[in-house]
Amino acid sequence: MPSHRQMPPGPHPVAFVGAGPGDPGLLTLNALHALQRAEVILHDRLASPAVLALANPDAQLIETGKTGFAPSTPQGDINTLIVAHARRGMRVVRLKSGDPAIFSRLDEEIAACDAAGLPWTILPGITAASAAAAALGQSLTRRDRNSALRLLTGHDVNGFAEQDWVALARPGTVAAIYMGKKTARFLQGRLLMHGADPATPVTVVENASRPGQRIVATALATLPADLDAAALGGPAITMLGLAPRKAVAALPELQKERA
Amino acid sequence: MPSHRQMPPGPHPVAFVGAGPGDPGLLTLNALHALQRAEVILHDRLASPAVLALANPDAQLIETGKTGFAPSTPQGDINTLIVAHARRGMRVVRLKSGDPAIFSRLDEEIAACDAAGLPWTILPGITAASAAAAALGQSLTRRDRNSALRLLTGHDVNGFAEQDWVALARPGTVAAIYMGKKTARFLQGRLLMHGADPATPVTVVENASRPGQRIVATALATLPADLDAAALGGPAITMLGLAPRKAVAALPELQKERA
Ligand SMILES: C[S@@+](CC[C@H](N)C(=O)[O-])C[C@H]1O[C@@H](n2cnc3c(N)ncnc32)[C@H](O)[C@@H]1O
Ligand SMILES: C[S@@+](CC[C@H](N)C(=O)[O-])C[C@H]1O[C@@H](n2cnc3c(N)ncnc32)[C@H](O)[C@@H]1O
Repeated sequence: MPSHRQMPPGPHPVAFVGAGPGDPGLLTLNALHALQRAEVILHDRLASPAVLALANPDAQLIETGKTGFAPSTPQGDINTLIVAHARRGMRVVRLKSGDPAIFSRLDEEIAACDAAGLPWTILPGITAASAAAAALGQSLTRRDRNSALRLLTGHDVNGFAEQDWVALARPGTVAAIYMGKKTARFLQGRLLMHGADPATPVTVVENASRPGQRIVATALATLPADLDAAALGGPAITMLGLAPRKAVAALPELQKERA
Repeated sequence: MPSHRQMPPGPHPVAFVGAGPGDPGLLTLNALHALQRAEVILHDRLASPAVLALANPDAQLIETGKTGFAPSTPQGDINTLIVAHARRGMRVVRLKSGDPAIFSRLDEEIAACDAAGLPWTILPGITAASAAAAALGQSLTRRDRNSALRLLTGHDVNGFAEQDWVALARPGTVAAIYMGKKTARFLQGRLLMHGADPATPVTVVENASRPGQRIVATALATLPADLDAAALGGPAITMLGLAPRKAVAALPELQKERA
């Protein structure tokens, strides 16, 4: 006789899980729990090996190969995979870097679940901007500087993303630009054209929270040249209007220690 | 003879720890670890009891009583407490709701540590906007809608915070407004004055991820009246440009299940 504590019949909810920026210590307890129970995990190419190492060892790992806005597995195929595995009764985790709600095409995957009548749930994660701020030792907002913070994408479906350049060019603006590595020159051009100070600090954080973390501190005037010179290979986020705090440069070991 | 693995002498780094929105399952592994090792924890009035319950039972808990931008313990006193305990050699955790880098006066506390020559570290957390998006079942960005997301404060040091209303009034804008409960009428007035559609969806999420979570789905035209009627008592975030997904309303139990 079924007890009232039995699970409801039907498929498990598909879990859209935020993996955070890559340090497994930045996983949430809920995300860890979901990874440990997962039977199928669909993850992007950038998924951190250290995070995947915490997953259920019996889970089937499927790399969707998507990087940024240029999917190598077409989005439709990813949707199909999610739906097919969930319909088979598997516990499916769709692992997204950072927070699933930020620049990750979550809507399209949820719409596919809805169309298939599948339940789903979202487990939020630490977005790259928060990890980059921690790496810089800076706040993303400050009472006397900015009462608004912008999260932008460097490129969208139409190519380089047009933005509200007038507002972004104003002194005191703070913006985190995702997927902005290739758009440094475009960004610089647009901002200078709209009156931004060439001395505006800009800091690029590569591999925030990951082993190969690098911080390129520059200014708007020198951003493209300094980025070219740095030849970043990993995921990188461009922080407009922020310089690293001096203490971060002075105390790298302490910054990395987990207090 | 001191081994090379010995801790460096001097005070422990002060840890600025993001507690996330309140659900202890949304703590990061690093944050949990810091709470379990802490000897002194300074936390705001809104700190979630479920999160504090996971801390080292021997830690001294100090409530700073700060809520939003209206501190009941003056900021200078909080700075003094952090420094005094760290100087005594204690492992100090300064627990911040959400992410420490977002609307939490982190800079002022770091500056106090720097002035005292104390090391510090930042452990990022899940910000309220991410938790609210998960509760709504919505993405904060969408390819065909918004390539930028704004995090704003409803009020700042000068009172109601002025914003880039022209940009915010545009169709497709998505913004998360922190500390916006009392500014609903101001926000509505400014946005309508700048041409926003009165039918723009606005959703207020109270106690995101916490036991008393409530979702007030309305539109710009009816925001102040609906907020008054709801009489929210807990922390609330206003999501401009987002409505809850239909499935969220239809499947509340599944949404809450941790897959
Ligand atoms: C497709 S977007 C996904 C963003 C993710 N959902 C988030 O909330 O962080 C990928 C972009 O996120 C940024 N990113 C992700 N992880 C990062 C990391 N560890 N360090 C720096 N940037 C990162 C980079 O700008 C990268 O191009
Ligand atoms: C002083 S700010 C701190 C923000 C925090 N550092 C963060 O990143 O979420 C406090 C405001 O955050 C929002 N907030 C914090 N926790 C929340 C929750 N669980 N649900 C809804 N809003 C929340 C509310 O707008 C509240 O007025």
